[in-house]
Amino acid sequence: MPTNVVPIHGRRKADTTENPIKVLQGLVADDMNLVNELILDRMQSPVALIPELAGHLISSGGKRLRPMLTLASAQMIGYEGKRHIGLATAVEFIHTATLLHDDVVDESNMRRGKKTANLIWGNQPTVLVGDFLFSRAFELMVESDSLRVLKILSNTSAVITEGEVLQLTTANDLSTPEDKYLEVITAKTAVLFAAACEVAGVVSDQGREVEEALDSYGKYLGIAFQLVDDALDYSAVQATLGKEIGDDFREGKVTLPVILAFRRGSDEEKAFWKRTVERRRQEDGDLEKAIRLLGQHDTLNGTIDRARHYGAMAKDALAIFKDHPAKTALLDIVDFCIDRAY
Amino acid sequence: MPTNVVPIHGRRKADTTENPIKVLQGLVADDMNLVNELILDRMQSPVALIPELAGHLISSGGKRLRPMLTLASAQMIGYEGKRHIGLATAVEFIHTATLLHDDVVDESNMRRGKKTANLIWGNQPTVLVGDFLFSRAFELMVESDSLRVLKILSNTSAVITEGEVLQLTTANDLSTPEDKYLEVITAKTAVLFAAACEVAGVVSDQGREVEEALDSYGKYLGIAFQLVDDALDYSAVQATLGKEIGDDFREGKVTLPVILAFRRGSDEEKAFWKRTVERRRQEDGDLEKAIRLLGQHDTLNGTIDRARHYGAMAKDALAIFKDHPAKTALLDIVDFCIDRAY
Repeated sequence: MPTNVVPIHGRRKADTTENPIKVLQGLVADDMNLVNELILDRMQSPVALIPELAGHLISSGGKRLRPMLTLASAQMIGYEGKRHIGLATAVEFIHTATLLHDDVVDESNMRRGKKTANLIWGNQPTVLVGDFLFSRAFELMVESDSLRVLKILSNTSAVITEGEVLQLTTANDLSTPEDKYLEVITAKTAVLFAAACEVAGVVSDQGREVEEALDSYGKYLGIAFQLVDDALDYSAVQATLGKEIGDDFREGKVTLPVILAFRRGSDEEKAFWKRTVERRRQEDGDLEKAIRLLGQHDTLNGTIDRARHYGAMAKDALAIFKDHPAKTALLDIVDFCIDRAY
Repeated sequence: MPTNVVPIHGRRKADTTENPIKVLQGLVADDMNLVNELILDRMQSPVALIPELAGHLISSGGKRLRPMLTLASAQMIGYEGKRHIGLATAVEFIHTATLLHDDVVDESNMRRGKKTANLIWGNQPTVLVGDFLFSRAFELMVESDSLRVLKILSNTSAVITEGEVLQLTTANDLSTPEDKYLEVITAKTAVLFAAACEVAGVVSDQGREVEEALDSYGKYLGIAFQLVDDALDYSAVQATLGKEIGDDFREGKVTLPVILAFRRGSDEEKAFWKRTVERRRQEDGDLEKAIRLLGQHDTLNGTIDRARHYGAMAKDALAIFKDHPAKTALLDIVDFCIDRAY
């Protein structure tokens, strides 16, 4: 790490024994077992390549954060039925299908520390198995017997793809305004978080206020989550987690840390960003220089401060709900998503 | 054309002034205008690349055969509502999304006489716009307010992708048994034809017998249609229609004409097929030799005879319905799909 990097300002909490993800996992463990069974059941097909390819990603140790949000939301509001199990599974399938297609689109080689499906089996079956999981997600949604759930999730799915196309068209544009960037991350990440929470409200039939509060919580959490992800891609913390840093830089993805550094930079620095990110002509040492510039202009902290703003909005959205261990866990998860930057 | 080719045996009808496709188009013209408006409306997005890319394929002069089947089925059974319009549009969107992904999967360069979207815009937005159209299809299905329709179409969509993955895994296997080939073409083509017809029955609420008859008609028509397509790919008739012949051969796709020729061939011929189709090591003159072998073993006629068998089953499925101009058109379209081989 270069010595002139301004450190990300420390707000890390004192370590407690309880990791909020673990707390959340404990609270929803019974339901999550049902979700995991349903995932395995519904990714089956007489065509053996389908469960093989889908299973490669599904069993690769993702956190199952999105289905966990559905399950915890349902628990917080006292839902006692079983319809949230299928919906949590549908949400995870939509997410997995999106990842498969993303890896084809981005020509990625690694995901969650494993070779990507497109690298192992090629683009052809990866695109098709993504389509298969989308279809299975819709089958699960249909089984919920709720047209409102179907409206929410089918619209979510359309908005995600719009967001990804929008990202393609803005990908290399360093003058992307912040609101456009926000639009992209809302569409590609936050709307699925929002839907994951909202559908729990819909099946529990407690009215629009509850649904809207869950929708807001999920949306703002999703925005905060993606902002932190975009900061982490340039952060030494990411490296300590065993993940590679600089993926976004190498792919020429214009994320907020870079947008801010470009805007705040000198002419020489602007030329550097244009060469490396817009034209993607990168040399040895460029990533290190990029990280140094982000530090000089303090843009990782700028990005995380924004995440904190959205995190506060997410937490406020839950104010209408009574105290409940699931509510506490959902509140703590917001801080956890932000604090993983430290 | 080599002189030793056994000609496809002629059963072409005397030319009449009425092309059955035109008759069908005339019968459903008012409804099709509504479908076309809805197609244009629902492929819109604030992200300009989406309607641009989708419109390239959608406006490229496809026959709109699948939505026409929905509209004609609804007319034949006297449905008087408007829910079939959205469903016909959904069916066309599913079909279009499938074509976009197929072109990425097959690395195709031409479709309907135009450059493919993946060639013009690249694989990235083509995959994503396919996903977008799938999502829009589901939104349209949800608007039908019928959970049975949603079950049928979401299952259809899963089966289509299963069929395509199955095709990938059998693609280069010359010993593919005929039932496996039939399974592939049923999944990748016939189930969408079947669903296109069946959903008209569901929204008109006339009971299972009507739905099942429409489902059977569509399925058998779809199988016949694909069999003829697979024969046409090697036929001089295709060439006279201005389409290239030999695409399947070049891609190493094992279709029924080739399966039969391989099975009926000498050892030398088997070696030829193994080199050209299984290993895809092709030289100048190979396509001509392939066509000659198909002629010697009369496998195009063998394929079309099978299409005629399924065509007869399609027509018989409509026997329960009263006479109606739409019924006549649906019967005639079966023969038309088969006779286009001549």
